Amino acid sequence: MNQQQPASYRITFEPGNRTVTAAGGETLLEAARRLGLHVNASCGGDGTCGRCRVIIEQGAVNGGASEKISPADFQQGHRLACGAEITGDTVVRIPVESGLGKGGLTTGGRGEVAGRNRARMHVYDIEELREHGLFLPPVEKFFLELPRPGHADNMADAGRIINSLSSQYDEHRMVITLPVLKKIPAALRADDFRATVTVARPVHSGKNFVMDIQPGNWTRRNFALAFDLGTTSIYGILVDLESGKVLARDGAYNGQLSYGEDVISRIIYAEKPQGLERMQELAVNTINQVLDKLLAKAHPPEEAARGAVRREEISSITIAANTTMTHLLLGLDPSHIRRAPYVPASTFLPPVRAADLGLKLDQHAVALCYPAVSSYVGGDIVAGVMGSGMYRTDKLTLYLDIGTNAEIVIGSREWLVCAACSAGPAFEGGGITHGMRAAQGAIEDVAIDPQTLEPLLTTVGNRPPVGICGSGLLNLVAALFTCGVLDSRGRFQRELATDRLREGRSGWEYVLVRQQEAGVEHDIVLNEVDIQNFMRAKAAIFAGVKTLVEEVGLAIGDLEQVILAGAFGSYLDLDAAMTVGLLPEIAPEKFLYVGNGSLMGAWMSAMSNHIRRDVVAVVRKLTSFELSEVTAFQEQYTASQFLPHTDLELFPGVKKRLNEQAATSIPAP
Amino acid sequence: MNQQQPASYRITFEPGNRTVTAAGGETLLEAARRLGLHVNASCGGDGTCGRCRVIIEQGAVNGGASEKISPADFQQGHRLACGAEITGDTVVRIPVESGLGKGGLTTGGRGEVAGRNRARMHVYDIEELREHGLFLPPVEKFFLELPRPGHADNMADAGRIINSLSSQYDEHRMVITLPVLKKIPAALRADDFRATVTVARPVHSGKNFVMDIQPGNWTRRNFALAFDLGTTSIYGILVDLESGKVLARDGAYNGQLSYGEDVISRIIYAEKPQGLERMQELAVNTINQVLDKLLAKAHPPEEAARGAVRREEISSITIAANTTMTHLLLGLDPSHIRRAPYVPASTFLPPVRAADLGLKLDQHAVALCYPAVSSYVGGDIVAGVMGSGMYRTDKLTLYLDIGTNAEIVIGSREWLVCAACSAGPAFEGGGITHGMRAAQGAIEDVAIDPQTLEPLLTTVGNRPPVGICGSGLLNLVAALFTCGVLDSRGRFQRELATDRLREGRSGWEYVLVRQQEAGVEHDIVLNEVDIQNFMRAKAAIFAGVKTLVEEVGLAIGDLEQVILAGAFGSYLDLDAAMTVGLLPEIAPEKFLYVGNGSLMGAWMSAMSNHIRRDVVAVVRKLTSFELSEVTAFQEQYTASQFLPHTDLELFPGVKKRLNEQAATSIPAP
Repeated sequence: MNQQQPASYRITFEPGNRTVTAAGGETLLEAARRLGLHVNASCGGDGTCGRCRVIIEQGAVNGGASEKISPADFQQGHRLACGAEITGDTVVRIPVESGLGKGGLTTGGRGEVAGRNRARMHVYDIEELREHGLFLPPVEKFFLELPRPGHADNMADAGRIINSLSSQYDEHRMVITLPVLKKIPAALRADDFRATVTVARPVHSGKNFVMDIQPGNWTRRNFALAFDLGTTSIYGILVDLESGKVLARDGAYNGQLSYGEDVISRIIYAEKPQGLERMQELAVNTINQVLDKLLAKAHPPEEAARGAVRREEISSITIAANTTMTHLLLGLDPSHIRRAPYVPASTFLPPVRAADLGLKLDQHAVALCYPAVSSYVGGDIVAGVMGSGMYRTDKLTLYLDIGTNAEIVIGSREWLVCAACSAGPAFEGGGITHGMRAAQGAIEDVAIDPQTLEPLLTTVGNRPPVGICGSGLLNLVAALFTCGVLDSRGRFQRELATDRLREGRSGWEYVLVRQQEAGVEHDIVLNEVDIQNFMRAKAAIFAGVKTLVEEVGLAIGDLEQVILAGAFGSYLDLDAAMTVGLLPEIAPEKFLYVGNGSLMGAWMSAMSNHIRRDVVAVVRKLTSFELSEVTAFQEQYTASQFLPHTDLELFPGVKKRLNEQAATSIPAP
Repeated sequence: MNQQQPASYRITFEPGNRTVTAAGGETLLEAARRLGLHVNASCGGDGTCGRCRVIIEQGAVNGGASEKISPADFQQGHRLACGAEITGDTVVRIPVESGLGKGGLTTGGRGEVAGRNRARMHVYDIEELREHGLFLPPVEKFFLELPRPGHADNMADAGRIINSLSSQYDEHRMVITLPVLKKIPAALRADDFRATVTVARPVHSGKNFVMDIQPGNWTRRNFALAFDLGTTSIYGILVDLESGKVLARDGAYNGQLSYGEDVISRIIYAEKPQGLERMQELAVNTINQVLDKLLAKAHPPEEAARGAVRREEISSITIAANTTMTHLLLGLDPSHIRRAPYVPASTFLPPVRAADLGLKLDQHAVALCYPAVSSYVGGDIVAGVMGSGMYRTDKLTLYLDIGTNAEIVIGSREWLVCAACSAGPAFEGGGITHGMRAAQGAIEDVAIDPQTLEPLLTTVGNRPPVGICGSGLLNLVAALFTCGVLDSRGRFQRELATDRLREGRSGWEYVLVRQQEAGVEHDIVLNEVDIQNFMRAKAAIFAGVKTLVEEVGLAIGDLEQVILAGAFGSYLDLDAAMTVGLLPEIAPEKFLYVGNGSLMGAWMSAMSNHIRRDVVAVVRKLTSFELSEVTAFQEQYTASQFLPHTDLELFPGVKKRLNEQAATSIPAP
């Protein structure tokens, strides 16, 4: 081993042939992070999750062994990147399951799978906003034709603008910011005192602000951004505030992913020296990346002559995110979020200059973050409540956003209660032996032949399968249970006559894909440990919903509407979800799907000052329950760790089907 | 001559032995400016004013001749710095009359001269503000003892502060700015949830802002700055917002002086590339210099244990300045101020972060500039109207601030009219052959023996005389007129038997100081051209006052109070001023002197949100007259270019005295 540390070495990562100079003693994970390469590290680099496996192709490293790596694989050069210290020039391969996957984020929607029973899509559009009197952009442009100054009228340039806004447009209480004052004299004289001013109307303020001025008439060029800043992925849309149209949408994995998959590992990193700055920088960089992609795409159709949207024509960005992500984006200390009693620095956030955050927007562009309710009921869920229209409905509604944390809101325009429960990462492909995100090659749907017990798969992008994503997992477990391969405790019926069932290194498992058919160099399996993880996740959600409904003195049967939000929700098969007991058994027509609720809320806020105003009251109205402190929740959680539930009366449809199938299709032991 | 331009040379300026490297072809004025050395250049460096005379002691320059330099002086090495191009290493002396003078600004008040009839001093103090219910600092500190977060109360840190401000202090509608949010978690936990917050209450806004947070109780450490940013000098005071006491006052010459003495030459410079940035930088640097001096002096007496005021304990700076200076300070384009129809970029200015302007204050400190009425009725005069209490009085008041521009306001709490008239620089020592500012060695008072016609002088600092400042000029002219040396047209009685009168290069002159008694190497004289300049200045002011009074349908006799402001006003002898017809003949007890009205207004604004609120209405109420457009003004101006006036009935006192003296003391022709 090289003893002359810290010398510096050349580390090359494959695929992609990306090279970085690293000091001896640095870990491969650190080197990859500096390059901006993503290596899965759910645990944030502590060596506990085993997800950051890499393969040393040339050279050698020190350390990086793990019980998650078999002796055979270790022989082949497999190491954990977080433990592997650099000791010389090295070529390292990041296997597909440790990286982000080739295709990047699927933003457009994956293929529909026939025969699946999904929630109806419901999306507010601009017409609906107008119809409900909600369309009132927080930033508007006004074209002014000002009287030229002269002998009898030598009012100041700024006063001339303010008077004209008042007389021509009935816009009052204007303050002109200093950067605009600097531009005014030249701007007014560039086109004979005809100019366009950009006016922002902050809610709950006695003042409106003139934020920009341009010579000539540019009123039809007024654009805004709305972003969902997720722990895993960041999605953005670019909207035309004149027409209300969405001109472009795109997304990217959150650059912070390399520092851990959940908010806790991000907070821990942020507590290190310069850690908060680094977290902020990564979030901002990812938003800037998405912004670049949006700008490359966005051409307002009716304004073709004037070309694509220019960066400086964007006057606002509205961002919805969970409380931790919001803190990291703004550079607020998140450390008390992860320690009892879980106190965020702030739940309400002031508007700030986007450029001050490092966002590549013009000086005049304002950034606004959605307010949160508490450390674990964040601005993303508030945005969902606004964006789904739940805050305005008369129907008793359950809003459910399933991610690493499941967020549950129950109520209507009158009252709202909410709770968050930790579902774990199972539905996002985490905590499962061969789990993965819904990237290219992810198994997203599974059917099982009830006779042969052979699987029928659908993968994202129709690529050779490399792992199982959330919807695939749900459908697989439901199918295995329905076919009788799994019992209600989530254990395999070991005596079944199929070579798909076998005893593996982690106990009994179902072989979903054999290595020769896979896009990876091993079988893809689901074992009983995975199934226990899945059951805990679905149990937490069901118990959360049931507990919260009952805490307010109601029953599940009282729900008049269920709104599903989030990527998982869009691919969620209602039958499968009820079969395993993830969702309560409710008539499918009562289910709505709103897509990315957080992004929808950000969009609405970008379009509507009414929403911006109302959100303050909604946040104050939202009563947050800490489920871990409700005794009933623990009982519900335990009772829910069965397929579908210990109390089959809660799932009469499933009970009926099981009874029918027991009589017909399950092979006798 | 050296032909290898632009080579670089070493230029040394005396006194002070300051050295700078300069390129061949650069002028001495440019080289001096780069060093930050002041060389008078009233014209801004155009070669027309002849004030930037320097003496080449070693080496040689190219050019710099002028009709203002006699052939003998030229032989001695005298040159105009603005025209003298560098051609080699040079040692240059800046003579005392071309520099700022050794003593710098006299901020404390010069010696009183016995027997002079001056206006009574009237200065608002903190007790009077309190008495009138005006004391309400725009920035206050509040000490909060917050409940510690716990199991049953895990509200966000920010919300905890907002709730406590509301329940403990009845302070509502708070917004916490992002920089403060960043500090909150650590600040709250540093002293067990006991902290001091700094709250700003912008007027006419629906919101109040938490601008800073400190662990512990710091409510007694709350300081503010008030500045008068003059074209020539910049004065500042540091106030304790807790006690209302002025802890320190100081001043400095405006660093822009080297670029011209009047606002027009500053505007012309600002129109050059990077010129506006340079003007802003110089104003900011001067304020920072004064700030350093204030901090070195300021020790709150009751807080001795905690030591001197620290920079970061200053939470606001209020600045009063004329419209051009305000534009230059904020970086606003002033170019249309000097061109008909004289349109400023803005008259109302938003509060800005002081640090954004380059002021050396903490991030949380806010800078606020006084609003103006128009291009030539600036924030300084508005500040004077506020600071003198004129805007609240029931008496019909004339407010008069005499500087290069004389500013005239007439009215009371009910109505206000104002006008500015260009008096020229005579009262500040400009435009007079041997005029100078009231620096060390300036002749500030003159008496003349009516028999011998010999002068008796008083100089600033009792130094050998080097020139004549404004008050000296006024008293000299009044004395010469009273003794019959000058006739009412401002011409010398040439036949008088005294060798003090002689015909010089610029016509007839009175020799005030002979070279052997002077602190400069020439006689100090006053010639008829100087007297014509003086008469034009005083005529403009008197005509301005009379025209404005009559424009509103009143007469000078209706005035119930005259408020004099400005440095000149404080040394102005009322008898002399009436004798020459500068001020109307009004009973001396009706005169008040308020000192630096602009600084006083800035101080009041720093102490009182009521003033900040009321100033908006006062500016709207102030009707501005453009005297050059009033026909009567031209007539008045012509009629006023006599001593004291063509219409002696306007000055019955003077008339009476002249008649008496004619009978006794004037030697017969």
